[in-house]
Amino acid sequence: MYKLYYAPGTCALASHIALEEAGAPYKVERLDFKSNQQNSPEYLAINPKGRVPALVTEQGVLTETPAILAFVAQTFPQARLAPFGDAFRLAEVQAFTNYLCSTVHVAHAHKMRGYRWATEESSFADMKRMVSKTMGSHFALIERDMIKGPWVMGETYTICDPYLFTIGTWLEGDGVDVSALPKVMAHRSRMLERPAVRKVVEEEK
Amino acid sequence: MYKLYYAPGTCALASHIALEEAGAPYKVERLDFKSNQQNSPEYLAINPKGRVPALVTEQGVLTETPAILAFVAQTFPQARLAPFGDAFRLAEVQAFTNYLCSTVHVAHAHKMRGYRWATEESSFADMKRMVSKTMGSHFALIERDMIKGPWVMGETYTICDPYLFTIGTWLEGDGVDVSALPKVMAHRSRMLERPAVRKVVEEEK
Repeated sequence: MYKLYYAPGTCALASHIALEEAGAPYKVERLDFKSNQQNSPEYLAINPKGRVPALVTEQGVLTETPAILAFVAQTFPQARLAPFGDAFRLAEVQAFTNYLCSTVHVAHAHKMRGYRWATEESSFADMKRMVSKTMGSHFALIERDMIKGPWVMGETYTICDPYLFTIGTWLEGDGVDVSALPKVMAHRSRMLERPAVRKVVEEEK
Repeated sequence: MYKLYYAPGTCALASHIALEEAGAPYKVERLDFKSNQQNSPEYLAINPKGRVPALVTEQGVLTETPAILAFVAQTFPQARLAPFGDAFRLAEVQAFTNYLCSTVHVAHAHKMRGYRWATEESSFADMKRMVSKTMGSHFALIERDMIKGPWVMGETYTICDPYLFTIGTWLEGDGVDVSALPKVMAHRSRMLERPAVRKVVEEEK
């Protein structure tokens, strides 16, 4: 039985959906970010980074969304969530999940978490003003070059899909004009037709 | 024959070392960041992100360091650069490479590339002032919790090692007190004893 630590509205949603899609035996534990529970001594003993997601397995704790997603895909191969038999295609999947974590998620984080990289209120305001532009340009690249359709990697649903869906839920709040992103929006609709996605989205409410 | 696009002083060094360690057939192509060659139309046709590394393969172009590293490891299994047969251990490797790309590299980038997330000179200066602190705390976590020793993952050298070595070369320039990081520094020395590392470091000079 896996245990996934998550908080609503965070990137942990991607791992949550992947576990559900894989048919993995798991339970979830919700952290309250408002009371800073992610930095409590109890949670830091599980994940010293003070972030979500963290996946507790019998072998130890895993962190970082792309790593957890790949772990779920490899552990439940019958769900076919990543092309582990094909090094190039697997690397394409990982290039996509890495782009989301290291560039797109980071751009978004500058809206509310500027204190990670600066100290002045004026810097936070400056960073906040730029988020609609950075998120807009990163998603423009995703729209133009990365979504093969109907799923990110083409005909086959992979771990890229719940992750794109998750980060995509932040677009409107980040002030991005989603009418310029028809493929991304069609992908969102397609995701919301999947029973696993609906179940998890409902559960995180 | 693979072709790796790189620039000196960048994270592409990790992929360069991994190719060399794997015994892969490859050549390198150096980009001149000073003349902004990474944003030339020719290079953007190869990598629309305008970043390095990019690895040109017969099947297409790969980007993102963790994805390229995993690709090299999987394609040249005799070099044993990642535990592809063990989902949990592979995920540990990927959690480490992802931490480097999405948290540590990003912290470093705020020194010189603040324009990615803000527009004001005062914000850039603010970000720059904080880099020694963020890089210091991220590497303190690596030192305390992540390096199993002698290599990152323990007895076996993996793709984590060239990547840690690469990001670690930025520490002094980022104003981090490396005397507080004995394991990281011992790891650097150990890396510099490897013929593949010496060869690549020499070549990138």
